[in-house]
Amino acid sequence: MIIMKAGATDAEVANVVEEIKKYGLRADVSRGEFRTVIGLVGDERKIPFSHFAVLPGVKEAMMVETPYKLISKEYSKLLGEEDEPRVIKVGNISIGGDEPVFIAGPCAVESRQQLFRIAEGVKKAGAHILRGGVFKPRSSVHSFQGLGAGGPEEAEEALSWLREAGQQFEMPVITEIRGETQVDLVADYVDILQIGARNMYDQDLLTRAARKNKPVMLKRHFGAGIEEFLSFAEYIAAEGNKDIILCERGIIPIGKGKSYTRYTLDLAAVPAIQKETYLPILADPSHATGRRDLIFNMSCASIAAGASGLMIETHYNPAEAMVDGQQMITPDELKEVIQACQSIHRLLVKKQK
Amino acid sequence: MIIMKAGATDAEVANVVEEIKKYGLRADVSRGEFRTVIGLVGDERKIPFSHFAVLPGVKEAMMVETPYKLISKEYSKLLGEEDEPRVIKVGNISIGGDEPVFIAGPCAVESRQQLFRIAEGVKKAGAHILRGGVFKPRSSVHSFQGLGAGGPEEAEEALSWLREAGQQFEMPVITEIRGETQVDLVADYVDILQIGARNMYDQDLLTRAARKNKPVMLKRHFGAGIEEFLSFAEYIAAEGNKDIILCERGIIPIGKGKSYTRYTLDLAAVPAIQKETYLPILADPSHATGRRDLIFNMSCASIAAGASGLMIETHYNPAEAMVDGQQMITPDELKEVIQACQSIHRLLVKKQK
Amino acid sequence: MIIMKAGATDAEVANVVEEIKKYGLRADVSRGEFRTVIGLVGDERKIPFSHFAVLPGVKEAMMVETPYKLISKEYSKLLGEEDEPRVIKVGNISIGGDEPVFIAGPCAVESRQQLFRIAEGVKKAGAHILRGGVFKPRSSVHSFQGLGAGGPEEAEEALSWLREAGQQFEMPVITEIRGETQVDLVADYVDILQIGARNMYDQDLLTRAARKNKPVMLKRHFGAGIEEFLSFAEYIAAEGNKDIILCERGIIPIGKGKSYTRYTLDLAAVPAIQKETYLPILADPSHATGRRDLIFNMSCASIAAGASGLMIETHYNPAEAMVDGQQMITPDELKEVIQACQSIHRLLVKKQK
Amino acid sequence: MIIMKAGATDAEVANVVEEIKKYGLRADVSRGEFRTVIGLVGDERKIPFSHFAVLPGVKEAMMVETPYKLISKEYSKLLGEEDEPRVIKVGNISIGGDEPVFIAGPCAVESRQQLFRIAEGVKKAGAHILRGGVFKPRSSVHSFQGLGAGGPEEAEEALSWLREAGQQFEMPVITEIRGETQVDLVADYVDILQIGARNMYDQDLLTRAARKNKPVMLKRHFGAGIEEFLSFAEYIAAEGNKDIILCERGIIPIGKGKSYTRYTLDLAAVPAIQKETYLPILADPSHATGRRDLIFNMSCASIAAGASGLMIETHYNPAEAMVDGQQMITPDELKEVIQACQSIHRLLVKKQK
Repeated sequence: MIIMKAGATDAEVANVVEEIKKYGLRADVSRGEFRTVIGLVGDERKIPFSHFAVLPGVKEAMMVETPYKLISKEYSKLLGEEDEPRVIKVGNISIGGDEPVFIAGPCAVESRQQLFRIAEGVKKAGAHILRGGVFKPRSSVHSFQGLGAGGPEEAEEALSWLREAGQQFEMPVITEIRGETQVDLVADYVDILQIGARNMYDQDLLTRAARKNKPVMLKRHFGAGIEEFLSFAEYIAAEGNKDIILCERGIIPIGKGKSYTRYTLDLAAVPAIQKETYLPILADPSHATGRRDLIFNMSCASIAAGASGLMIETHYNPAEAMVDGQQMITPDELKEVIQACQSIHRLLVKKQK
Repeated sequence: MIIMKAGATDAEVANVVEEIKKYGLRADVSRGEFRTVIGLVGDERKIPFSHFAVLPGVKEAMMVETPYKLISKEYSKLLGEEDEPRVIKVGNISIGGDEPVFIAGPCAVESRQQLFRIAEGVKKAGAHILRGGVFKPRSSVHSFQGLGAGGPEEAEEALSWLREAGQQFEMPVITEIRGETQVDLVADYVDILQIGARNMYDQDLLTRAARKNKPVMLKRHFGAGIEEFLSFAEYIAAEGNKDIILCERGIIPIGKGKSYTRYTLDLAAVPAIQKETYLPILADPSHATGRRDLIFNMSCASIAAGASGLMIETHYNPAEAMVDGQQMITPDELKEVIQACQSIHRLLVKKQK
Repeated sequence: MIIMKAGATDAEVANVVEEIKKYGLRADVSRGEFRTVIGLVGDERKIPFSHFAVLPGVKEAMMVETPYKLISKEYSKLLGEEDEPRVIKVGNISIGGDEPVFIAGPCAVESRQQLFRIAEGVKKAGAHILRGGVFKPRSSVHSFQGLGAGGPEEAEEALSWLREAGQQFEMPVITEIRGETQVDLVADYVDILQIGARNMYDQDLLTRAARKNKPVMLKRHFGAGIEEFLSFAEYIAAEGNKDIILCERGIIPIGKGKSYTRYTLDLAAVPAIQKETYLPILADPSHATGRRDLIFNMSCASIAAGASGLMIETHYNPAEAMVDGQQMITPDELKEVIQACQSIHRLLVKKQK
Repeated sequence: MIIMKAGATDAEVANVVEEIKKYGLRADVSRGEFRTVIGLVGDERKIPFSHFAVLPGVKEAMMVETPYKLISKEYSKLLGEEDEPRVIKVGNISIGGDEPVFIAGPCAVESRQQLFRIAEGVKKAGAHILRGGVFKPRSSVHSFQGLGAGGPEEAEEALSWLREAGQQFEMPVITEIRGETQVDLVADYVDILQIGARNMYDQDLLTRAARKNKPVMLKRHFGAGIEEFLSFAEYIAAEGNKDIILCERGIIPIGKGKSYTRYTLDLAAVPAIQKETYLPILADPSHATGRRDLIFNMSCASIAAGASGLMIETHYNPAEAMVDGQQMITPDELKEVIQACQSIHRLLVKKQK
């Protein structure tokens, strides 16, 4: 990491960046209120830090050997930023800001009618962002894979419904990208690119999504430790895109015998991650529990644990949903969830003041 | 399970119990508001239910083949009880009642002075029950094993301090029993017998503790699924003791690399367990996280998830504690935790009305 | 699944395939010694089986609702195949045949000289197939990502070395594909396409790789149960490519405290999987243990458990390897491993006769 | 750890032991071929090593802060012992010696007739030690708990059958102790005391069993890491009893969906543990897999991985067993397993020479 002097010129910064490239690494330049910091992307052991320390405009040059550094709190502190999550603006919604954000919608987009009816419902319930899956990652090739599986035209049509529904009900929209070849298409239609838990380790997909310069929501893989989760978020940051929204959605359940929840929602990961990074983190109680009857409690718990928001699957009639009906709630139930969560959030903000 | 007719006489009940014994099983007789239910302890496949169905006073006789039935909601529903946790009274404290209960105190009792000072602190902070370890289960034989390891006299002395501190500061007391031979001694001094996570599978210990007819707090083993957890609680109920307090304290962390929390607090287990059993369930954020800086958030999250209370390790100076200093908070911090939790609880009670 | 009569004509088979398409599913036609079986790809609940049962040439039409059926033993039994693994031919090497197959080579291709020197060494040691990573999946963006990360030209150069080394030392070659966009390029140069553990869930990558009509080696994700592993192999089979080589390479270690092995090699998965599918399964003790000093024992154990071969990372000087040096063995050590494994295999074949 | 000079006298050793006691620790005196080593049991941070270093007869005094040291290879190396497992003699059977040892018998002793018939069968099959459960740890209080659950007389009768069967068929016998109060009784009847996986963490039971001065077999808990497993074995060694036989019997399975094996047999733990301790380690494929059809393969794999023997549940008619019938094999199948394992063992011994 190279810390520039307070008055370092653009030319001095550019010179350092050029020098870094000579050693086969890339530079991540961040201009903070008080100083400019240049993060190194690649193997820092190749860098002669003593050489960099004496370049014009350089205040300090030091090796940082953690797998996540561009997204770390140390980095934001060097830039003089406050000890709060980074606020990511999407339209007029702020993720990581003063209020928790609620993302809601169907697991899968099934038809224009279904999507619009749900969009209207979640908007009335108080949701801020509309979700809807077009490309569904499924464990079985014999299950419904989302309308996107029907071919490029079907995919584009479903994506256009999503955009229209977002416009009509004034919500930014988010959908999951499952493979590299979907990135360009999806980025044309949505405001936030979601990378699901199963794809968290797919570094080529992360890199490609990052380059669209749109916010990326990265869900934690169900087998990933926190360090791995943050290390893969770093792949996005390494492309210069720090509008990264993290999402805890449950890890592999431990213990023999039947499982009472689909995954184990690791809520302590929420504050633990907040000690490590300035990125906002949400929770997804729908996928974590897989049980409609636990959503209210676990939503409240997520907000109480400090999450910056929730992603909740919603359907006007969960029983007829093609995917994951057993974990979806209705818009009316969503409204109760959102109101309870907002009350808890306000209460905790007041306590902490 | 044998359901008696509304007007069944004591003699009819006694007759059924005698019949059950003939088949090598034991009977668990519960008298509800509307009817009496006789649970069977043992292998029900040995029972000729058609024979029992026609005994005098019997309304219905049916096989229930789950590993936990005496503690199940089905059982309490048969008795006509409300769909609320069982309220367990300890002195004037109610566990599972209208208010969350806070158990606090040091990880290990180290001296009379240390215990009394902490007891005073946690009482002022609003705690209801005093905890303090005398027999400490430890991973290493080379670590401090609690004052109880010094011999029977040291154990008894430490236990007497616990009782005195409880009396002086008007709190019931709880301590952990690690082995069968400690049961009688500990039961003489404390109000609640705690069986720790490492001993959850120790069925002989559970059975023996159950027979003291005092409330037993059973912590979930870090490798146990919910079904296993409840199956071992059933060992206590099978002795006729249904004053069982469950406690979620974290399961084995998943994921490679360094662990950011000691265990994974499985908060969704709280409402999931509440769907299965009428027993109250608490959470222990201290052992689950192993991190003082996560206690506030995870305490709030536990109450928001629906826990009937918390167990929190507290010390006036965590840095000097002989065991687990890194996870203890001070009485002042405890006070903040308790107040935030009580506010969340009140808010959620109001919402649900 | 549609089972055709013994003498069903090509026209009758084609007719059934056409009918299947009408319902939005795809057909997988397998011609066995005694009969032709048509597997259905997609949601079988849409199919009116009674209608299909009376089509000309159809013997039986039945629903099979497991997530893996095209790769199941039931399927091969219907075709009248023997209860042995499918033999996959690559050049003159048979995987799943009478002899265990050994795949060896460096973790990462670092230079032409390095690769050729290792290729020569492993060939002399008795290896049958040469491996070498060009696109390395890494947890940290700051680690060496393989020569393929340098750009298309560097990737192609490294791949051409691999092909040349394979030709010179008469071994088929295998390398890992990390992302969809690498499929075409890699397939031009190698004999077997490897999909690594981290990408096991990447169904778009699996589908695309399957279509190259080359054998695909699929490694089990470290968080995947056996059912999930087989369900994702089914994605490859669903493209009509059944030359699938499975590979067990270790799952997430359980248990607190430092881990003595990188992953947990789940050797019982080898025979358990052989009861489910006709696909051959190998083991990778290098990634599973991450420890050079355990390779010999765990290689022997893998073959004794019934694995059809091993993938072992090899380097003439593990200490200077850029990636994973701590788990690589030398060609001399490889020779000992191969000889011991072959002896165990012969011994067990003899026992079972 | 205190290393005595080559010619240190008994009085000098006794003096060091006395000094150690003054600091509240216990001493473990081991007399090796070349020197005497005194291990410290307890918190070594209380010991002024510089003071001990100058006591008469002391060569070196140093702190060793691992949770297992009395059972570590470092310890046996200091004593000048060979780098082989400790050989534990039970009657004329050697565990950890030149030949693998096979322990076989029914899961539970059900009757005298059943036990004798099985004992005869396993003896003929080549087994060396007879097992049979009298006190069965069970997940459900409603399941058969072993004849020992019938009361002290039934327990003693079943134990006496075990001893008689061992005498008649010339095999030492082993059974599981589930609780502290069973230790004295069981030790009167059997040659090896077994502590099962569920009780591994029960340090009071370990301590009490250790004091009987009989070999103790300790099974790894299904949620325990290797470090924990060895740390609890240290509890036995701390009582001066180093005749400890370790046993790997499977850990909690990872991965959603149905489990194909009951637990995950962690065979890499076998050689990994052999690098850490001189204690012999066996494997138990019966409990690990829970599947009769995997026993042959996993037995061979265990021996190939380096295990010093196996524990295998056997029954002449598994279908009629009261407990765990699905994982038991017949004496005829056992014979095949033993012969294959012995061949593999001989082959590997030859290779390593």
